[in-house]
Amino acid sequence: MTDDSREHVLPDSDEELETADVEGFDFTGDITLDTVLDSYATTGFQATALADAIDIVERMQDDEATIYLTCTSNIVSSGLREIVAALIREGHVDVLITTSGSLTEDVIKTAKPFKMGSWDADEAELREKGINRLGNIYVPSDRYVWLEEYLNDFFEDFFAEEPVRTPTDFAAELGATLDDENSILKQAADNDVPVFCPALTDAEVGNFLYYYRQQAEEDIGIEILEDYETLIEDGMLANKTGLIALGDGVPKHHAIMTNLFRGGADYAVYVSTGMEGDGSLSGAPPEEAVSWGKIKNADKNYTQVEAEATLVVPLLVAQAFEF
Amino acid sequence: MTDDSREHVLPDSDEELETADVEGFDFTGDITLDTVLDSYATTGFQATALADAIDIVERMQDDEATIYLTCTSNIVSSGLREIVAALIREGHVDVLITTSGSLTEDVIKTAKPFKMGSWDADEAELREKGINRLGNIYVPSDRYVWLEEYLNDFFEDFFAEEPVRTPTDFAAELGATLDDENSILKQAADNDVPVFCPALTDAEVGNFLYYYRQQAEEDIGIEILEDYETLIEDGMLANKTGLIALGDGVPKHHAIMTNLFRGGADYAVYVSTGMEGDGSLSGAPPEEAVSWGKIKNADKNYTQVEAEATLVVPLLVAQAFEF
Amino acid sequence: MTDDSREHVLPDSDEELETADVEGFDFTGDITLDTVLDSYATTGFQATALADAIDIVERMQDDEATIYLTCTSNIVSSGLREIVAALIREGHVDVLITTSGSLTEDVIKTAKPFKMGSWDADEAELREKGINRLGNIYVPSDRYVWLEEYLNDFFEDFFAEEPVRTPTDFAAELGATLDDENSILKQAADNDVPVFCPALTDAEVGNFLYYYRQQAEEDIGIEILEDYETLIEDGMLANKTGLIALGDGVPKHHAIMTNLFRGGADYAVYVSTGMEGDGSLSGAPPEEAVSWGKIKNADKNYTQVEAEATLVVPLLVAQAFEF
Amino acid sequence: MTDDSREHVLPDSDEELETADVEGFDFTGDITLDTVLDSYATTGFQATALADAIDIVERMQDDEATIYLTCTSNIVSSGLREIVAALIREGHVDVLITTSGSLTEDVIKTAKPFKMGSWDADEAELREKGINRLGNIYVPSDRYVWLEEYLNDFFEDFFAEEPVRTPTDFAAELGATLDDENSILKQAADNDVPVFCPALTDAEVGNFLYYYRQQAEEDIGIEILEDYETLIEDGMLANKTGLIALGDGVPKHHAIMTNLFRGGADYAVYVSTGMEGDGSLSGAPPEEAVSWGKIKNADKNYTQVEAEATLVVPLLVAQAFEF
Ligand SMILES: NC(=O)c1ccc[n+]([C@@H]2O[C@H](COP(=O)([O-])OP(=O)(O)OC[C@H]3O[C@@H](n4cnc5c(N)ncnc54)[C@H](O)[C@@H]3O)[C@@H](O)[C@H]2O)c1
Ligand SMILES: NC(=O)c1ccc[n+]([C@@H]2O[C@H](COP(=O)([O-])OP(=O)(O)OC[C@H]3O[C@@H](n4cnc5c(N)ncnc54)[C@H](O)[C@@H]3O)[C@@H](O)[C@H]2O)c1
Repeated sequence: MTDDSREHVLPDSDEELETADVEGFDFTGDITLDTVLDSYATTGFQATALADAIDIVERMQDDEATIYLTCTSNIVSSGLREIVAALIREGHVDVLITTSGSLTEDVIKTAKPFKMGSWDADEAELREKGINRLGNIYVPSDRYVWLEEYLNDFFEDFFAEEPVRTPTDFAAELGATLDDENSILKQAADNDVPVFCPALTDAEVGNFLYYYRQQAEEDIGIEILEDYETLIEDGMLANKTGLIALGDGVPKHHAIMTNLFRGGADYAVYVSTGMEGDGSLSGAPPEEAVSWGKIKNADKNYTQVEAEATLVVPLLVAQAFEF
Repeated sequence: MTDDSREHVLPDSDEELETADVEGFDFTGDITLDTVLDSYATTGFQATALADAIDIVERMQDDEATIYLTCTSNIVSSGLREIVAALIREGHVDVLITTSGSLTEDVIKTAKPFKMGSWDADEAELREKGINRLGNIYVPSDRYVWLEEYLNDFFEDFFAEEPVRTPTDFAAELGATLDDENSILKQAADNDVPVFCPALTDAEVGNFLYYYRQQAEEDIGIEILEDYETLIEDGMLANKTGLIALGDGVPKHHAIMTNLFRGGADYAVYVSTGMEGDGSLSGAPPEEAVSWGKIKNADKNYTQVEAEATLVVPLLVAQAFEF
Repeated sequence: MTDDSREHVLPDSDEELETADVEGFDFTGDITLDTVLDSYATTGFQATALADAIDIVERMQDDEATIYLTCTSNIVSSGLREIVAALIREGHVDVLITTSGSLTEDVIKTAKPFKMGSWDADEAELREKGINRLGNIYVPSDRYVWLEEYLNDFFEDFFAEEPVRTPTDFAAELGATLDDENSILKQAADNDVPVFCPALTDAEVGNFLYYYRQQAEEDIGIEILEDYETLIEDGMLANKTGLIALGDGVPKHHAIMTNLFRGGADYAVYVSTGMEGDGSLSGAPPEEAVSWGKIKNADKNYTQVEAEATLVVPLLVAQAFEF
Repeated sequence: MTDDSREHVLPDSDEELETADVEGFDFTGDITLDTVLDSYATTGFQATALADAIDIVERMQDDEATIYLTCTSNIVSSGLREIVAALIREGHVDVLITTSGSLTEDVIKTAKPFKMGSWDADEAELREKGINRLGNIYVPSDRYVWLEEYLNDFFEDFFAEEPVRTPTDFAAELGATLDDENSILKQAADNDVPVFCPALTDAEVGNFLYYYRQQAEEDIGIEILEDYETLIEDGMLANKTGLIALGDGVPKHHAIMTNLFRGGADYAVYVSTGMEGDGSLSGAPPEEAVSWGKIKNADKNYTQVEAEATLVVPLLVAQAFEF
């Protein structure tokens, strides 16, 4: 009976594959950041994606691409805030696109730290104590009391210039008031990196804009078309562009959508926990953006690392950039 | 040797549990939508979450809560668009919060359908043919050519009234021009359901706003603070509120954040593919929002169904609402 | 400046797509299981995958394929146990492949139910009370006390026949002792459906085999090669084969691996929460199995529904099978 | 109107939290494996879980715990094979539990490498060429032709000793024939580390056992109860135990289930991509095992890193073990 089956179980193959051998780190030589991460290229699965990401980010720089960093707000909730600030400080990033929680939390952290917490908490009890939970990070409510005061002073000057302002102005002028080398907004202000945030209302800065507006004499506003024009046109003027997306959502899409105007980003690296099968923008791999012309179709110019960002971003930054 | 181990392997238990028995549909009786979905309550895992969601949505209605529906753009890319439109048409939803792709795609679909496609496509080839891919859905580029023309006509009138407008006005006035009973924007316009969309630029409607603005005589703009005020204040005026979040991102957060002002939503149902462990807002279960006071802590007033929305939303709507 | 960009933003497309329009259920007509699920075919994303799965399972039957059902143990923990039993009872399934927890829990449920519980529990407290948690399902420890007694009686007879037995014999003879129409093992025994379970030790039935063996006079054993031979050879004798995999792991792989001997399964439907990017067998979509020859490459003969099984299996079974 | 809302938006909080500040790596000092990974403890989300995992694995060793390493087969497909071999070579692991693909592939790799490939492949074309795909890893079919020959020689001697053998004997005797320092089986054989693999049939070694058995004179077999006894009893004799689970499935469950007999594992670290909400064993976090008594409930003695293993295991091993 078995004879029939052999051709199925053991089909011929005289194919010679020219690709690298799969081979991992074997802990016989030096154990350094370099040697360990070098081995990722041939370790397979997501390790290989991380090695590709490092390579692509290096090539962005060799090519003097305009680098867009996009991040979700929880990146700033976490310790990756300091890494994003360092990238801007060292001139490694040209454009930042994010959501409103990032602005909120970066400002708070210039004055008061977030605290390590626990995933499994009694949330009703936390509410009693005025402790807000973000995953395994805790933010006591006094941070927001402080923030409102700080922002109210800032709003006074900010809206005195003009009653209707843009999110990029908001970020730049707010950043200029801050005094913390680890602040993303401060580094962005100091290094002329624009910070785009179209949905500026959707976090505590929005809440305090609301309260401020209630008692403001003039009809203050936040206008978002002007920023969109700037983002599109700066992209069209760039020689080459490269995207590094930490998390997904509006910021990632904002970067690829505006790169469409220039015929697509030249390089793209996504770090994402999104699920492709839900048809979401967040879960869509870079390949999908190629069909739209949002990313160019060249040789290994994009990749996606399927990972929670805190695990891989410090490694990616340490290997792909000079400090 | 075994004696030692028995107390570990077989600990005492004289606990009587009062909860329901786990018991699934056994296909011996009538097989209808009702009988099958009734069995979900005691089927366990996510089936039970879906049964809870149905129950909570029924209780929202009994309680005459103001119902907020939030959805990501891909919900509108998919056939769930027709379901959202039906919910608004029948008066089941009071507030809609979404992202800009929803507006874009709802308008296109009033004129030209999206087409079924395939997840595994050669994206470079699709780009050649001018076919854009959204998961397993294809959108030929001619849809966007049509859209630009349609919007240009609309923009003319819309910005003639005033040069700086809000996203809710944009949605309402655009919806009023449409002629398709399955259109979300049309139903929203007809039924006075406001459509909030703070990041209005981040999709093709934004692209065409950009092109239009380039050649407009006046300095047109989109202002987002006024909508935020309306959303907050309408929430504070509501007697009870209930949230139904289809997908996550900015729309879901916008609903819970503005419900904070009233002391939290009274009911909340999330349908989500988010991952809790990434610390994202998208992945955060309703419990996390309780610590922030964005959702109230009452008896079984919230749940999350961990599922891709197209699989469960038709069932949830069919069971929880009257048509 | 904008002129340059138009060809990128609005590429030509005179492509006519022949596929169906994306169109969802609009709640204007009859709302039944049939009408709702019919709409899934054109709803997109995973709904379309479920519609495809229903179609493929119908074609398996039209083609009189030998149907392999594979399931993980938690399927039996949940209310899907009753559905699997019903499928066997009605003659819809020819081979069952599973893991050892399925056997354990199916037997317990013939005597004592599992109880609905909660995901968020204080586990140390549950341990104190002798309550074991499986997701949102609770199993009080007395169930295992009962099970040991029941199995000890059974083992006596079972190993008296021969000291070294196979997992399929174990399942068949155990099933024959049971008295519960909702029991998978009983239905399998009554309907001559073999139950394969290579890792038979890896659950409480294994624990009680261990205890029994400690005090048995003879050297009892469980031998697994003979079952593997049967599974392979029955597959080779089948005219056509179809796989329905509820969950992943060893059972799913066992089915596709043994189908390799016949040149691949003719049809395959996976219901899975696995992640493709981890390179696991569990996350590997059916496409990967095609490269191995484990699934045939024909026209739409396989699909994967990315979903937690309790949500979709009752629907799949209700639509694809006759009761 | 706003006054009402302030107590909701800004609740009191005079809570002083004693936990660490959230603070990430800021790239101002030395950039080494140590400094980068040290920062993970206060980076939040999964980075903190990885830092906890490193800490727990260090404590396992300080406590001289018997260390169980469990892994799925794809770990061995990837370059993590070399790392597992190194751990055994250096005496860091006492027990290995895995599935059958691990044995299959470890042996092949002693003779012929696996090759780097691509996730997006034309699977039917690969089948034509006799190339099997495992995620982004390719295995040409000639590897299996070689394996069958190798195993046939081995089987001759192996079953000559006794016709019915155990998986641990299989692994040990097979390992002893191998000549490759990077081989897991060779290192296990040399270092007296037992390799448990209850579902030994479920991979190519099973296929070749089947073919061999067809033409064997005697009735050969694989018996699995004896191994289960050994695993349980060795666990009960251990002073302390620690589990490191790379991936989930049968191997992870086998480790925690047999640790139940001794009252639970003292330490446990999971690296997993499983989804809790599917109620699976694979997705169940260590907390669930506490309710069963499979893991002890002590102070920070367990954690789960939600990550694809290739990304984090090299880092975990580099930091937690001495080489
Ligand atoms: N700390 C906060 O997260 C916070 C605070 C205040 C307000 N908000 C608001 O909530 C809304 C939604 O937040 P968002 O749009 O910033 O993103 P999000 O949290 O909704 O995440 C979007 C997607 O990004 C990916 N992602 C998120 N975290 C990741 C990680 N750690 N690693 C890899 N991928 C990851 C996932 O695919 C996720 O679904 C925004 O308007 C934001 O301003 C958030
Ligand atoms: N069709 C489109 O998706 C589309 C089109 C044009 C523009 N855009 C823009 O892209 C940006 C990002 O899109 P977004 O914010 O609407 O959401 P998104 O696609 O980024 O999804 C956000 C999160 O919602 C959840 N989710 C998404 N789809 C789901 C589903 N089917 N079932 C269950 N949960 C699901 C996931 O957690 C996901 O990470 C927005 O600005 C949007 O306007 C999207």
